[in-house]
Amino acid sequence: VKLALIGVGLLGGSFARAALGCGEVDRVIGYDVDAQALAAAQAIGAIHEAAPSAAAAVRGADLVMLAVPVGAMAESMTAIAPDLGADAIVTDVGSTKASVIAAARRSLGPAAGRFVPAHPIAGGETPGVRASDPGLFRKRLCITTPEPDTDAAALARVEALWRALGSRVERMAAADHDRVFAAVSHLPHLLAFALVAHIAGEADADGMLARAGAGFRDVTRIAASSPRIWRDVCLANREALAAELDGYRALLAELRAALDAADGERLEAVFRTAAECRRAHATHLDAD
Amino acid sequence: VKLALIGVGLLGGSFARAALGCGEVDRVIGYDVDAQALAAAQAIGAIHEAAPSAAAAVRGADLVMLAVPVGAMAESMTAIAPDLGADAIVTDVGSTKASVIAAARRSLGPAAGRFVPAHPIAGGETPGVRASDPGLFRKRLCITTPEPDTDAAALARVEALWRALGSRVERMAAADHDRVFAAVSHLPHLLAFALVAHIAGEADADGMLARAGAGFRDVTRIAASSPRIWRDVCLANREALAAELDGYRALLAELRAALDAADGERLEAVFRTAAECRRAHATHLDAD
Repeated sequence: VKLALIGVGLLGGSFARAALGCGEVDRVIGYDVDAQALAAAQAIGAIHEAAPSAAAAVRGADLVMLAVPVGAMAESMTAIAPDLGADAIVTDVGSTKASVIAAARRSLGPAAGRFVPAHPIAGGETPGVRASDPGLFRKRLCITTPEPDTDAAALARVEALWRALGSRVERMAAADHDRVFAAVSHLPHLLAFALVAHIAGEADADGMLARAGAGFRDVTRIAASSPRIWRDVCLANREALAAELDGYRALLAELRAALDAADGERLEAVFRTAAECRRAHATHLDAD
Repeated sequence: VKLALIGVGLLGGSFARAALGCGEVDRVIGYDVDAQALAAAQAIGAIHEAAPSAAAAVRGADLVMLAVPVGAMAESMTAIAPDLGADAIVTDVGSTKASVIAAARRSLGPAAGRFVPAHPIAGGETPGVRASDPGLFRKRLCITTPEPDTDAAALARVEALWRALGSRVERMAAADHDRVFAAVSHLPHLLAFALVAHIAGEADADGMLARAGAGFRDVTRIAASSPRIWRDVCLANREALAAELDGYRALLAELRAALDAADGERLEAVFRTAAECRRAHATHLDAD
C-alpha cells in the first residue's frame, strides 16, 4: 500500500509512522509547502520520499492522507485532483468536518465520493513532525463523518486502518461533530489562547508567569499549540464556535455580576455544577 | 514543637504530614468543623489528637496553622485568640493575603503581630485530607506577605519551616500577591469552572464530554476543585479578580468580533502572542 502524505506535521507524521509501524502501509511519499518540514520528515523516517508537489506525491498512491491545516484543504484538493488514481482513497485528519466536506465536493472532482472525512481525537501542543509519535492514536477516539454518497468500501478501508492504529472509531454526522467539538475543543483552545494573551499584555507579565503554579500550567498547555492551525479551525467552524463562545460569555457576565454583588451563593452554585460534572467524567477524561 | 492544625483538608493535612516527616514538628492537635474529616486526618496519621474545638486545639501549641477556606479565617481567628499562648506563632496557607491580614488585625488581638501570612503555590484538584501528600510542597514556591509590624522572629521561624519542607520562599507585599494570583490562579480557576458549567448546561452535555480529548482534560482539571474554597477566594480577592476578568472579557469580545468578521489575521495574532508567551515560559511551567 502506497500512502501519499500531504502535510508532514505532528498529525500527518504520527499517522505515517503508525501506519508503517503496523504494516498497513509499505511506502510513504510526502509533500509539504515547508521544505524544511519535508526534509525533517524524511530524516526521522516518517516518509520514504519527498515529492516536489502535492500532485506528484499522489501519483500512483492507493491512499492519500490530507494532514494540512483545514484552511489549506481546498487548495490541496485542487492540486491533487487531476493526478489521483481511479481507485485512490482520500482522507484527512482535520478538526472540523463540514468545511472539509464542502471543499472536497468543490475541489476533488470525481474522487469526491472516495473522500472519507475523519478526525482523530489526539494531538499535542508541540507542532511539527519532530514531535510526531507513532503511538499517538492508540486508545484514542477517531470520528468519521461519512456523507450519504461516501463510497462504502473507501469508508470501511479508512475505518479499518484507524482500528489497526489502535483507535476506536465512531461515525457521526458532520454537523453534529462540528457542534460537539466547537464546545469541547475549539472553545477551550480559544479560551486558553486568550488567557495567556491577556496575561502577556499585563505590565508585570513575566513576574506573574514566574509565580504561576500547576493549575495555570494545565489550563494553558494548549495555548502553545499552532496559531495557524487553530486560526483555520476557528474560521472553518466559526458559526458553531461563535454560538458556544456567546453562551460562555453570558456565563462570565453572570459571574462578573456575582463578584460585584459579593454573591457567594451564585458563585458557589456555578462552581459546584462544574466540579460535580468534571468529577463525574474524571474516569473517562483522566484515563490515559 | 507542638502544632495546632485548624482545618484538616488537602493543604493542612499535607502540611502536618510534611512537618512531622522532616521532624520540624513532634505533635499535631487537629480541629475541623467536619468531624468526619477530623477522624480521617487521625486515621491517616496527619494529626495525633482531635480537639473538640479550635480553642482547645491551640492551648499549649507553639505553632498554629490555619488551613481553612479564606472566608472562614476571621471566625477561626476569633475562636482561637483567647487561648493562644503568649509566644505562639500563627500562620496560614490561604490563597488570598490582604483579606486574611485584615482578619488577623481584627480578630487575633495581641497575637496579630505573630501572625505570618503565607501562601504555598501547591495544591490539587482533589479536596480533602485523604488526598494529602507530605511531598506536596517540595520544589514549590511559598510566598510570605509580612506586614511592617510582623514579628521578625515569627517570620523567620515560619520561612525556615517552609524551607525545611522543600519550598522556595519569596516575600511579597500582600497587595502585589493578590494582584498576581488574581491573574495566574483565581482567574484561571473561575474560567475553568465556567467552561465546565457552560458545557454541563448543553442539551447533549454527556455526549460532548464523552468525546472530549486531552486538551479539554487539562483545561478543566482544576474545575474539579472545591467550590467552597474557590467561592471564598473569589470573594476575598474580588476587586483584583474583577479587574482581571474585565480585561479577559474585553479580549473575548474582540475575538468574537474577529470570528464574525472572519478576521483570520486578528485571531492568529492573538493566538501567536499566546503561543510564543506560553512556549517562552514552558521550561519553568512544565518542569515538575
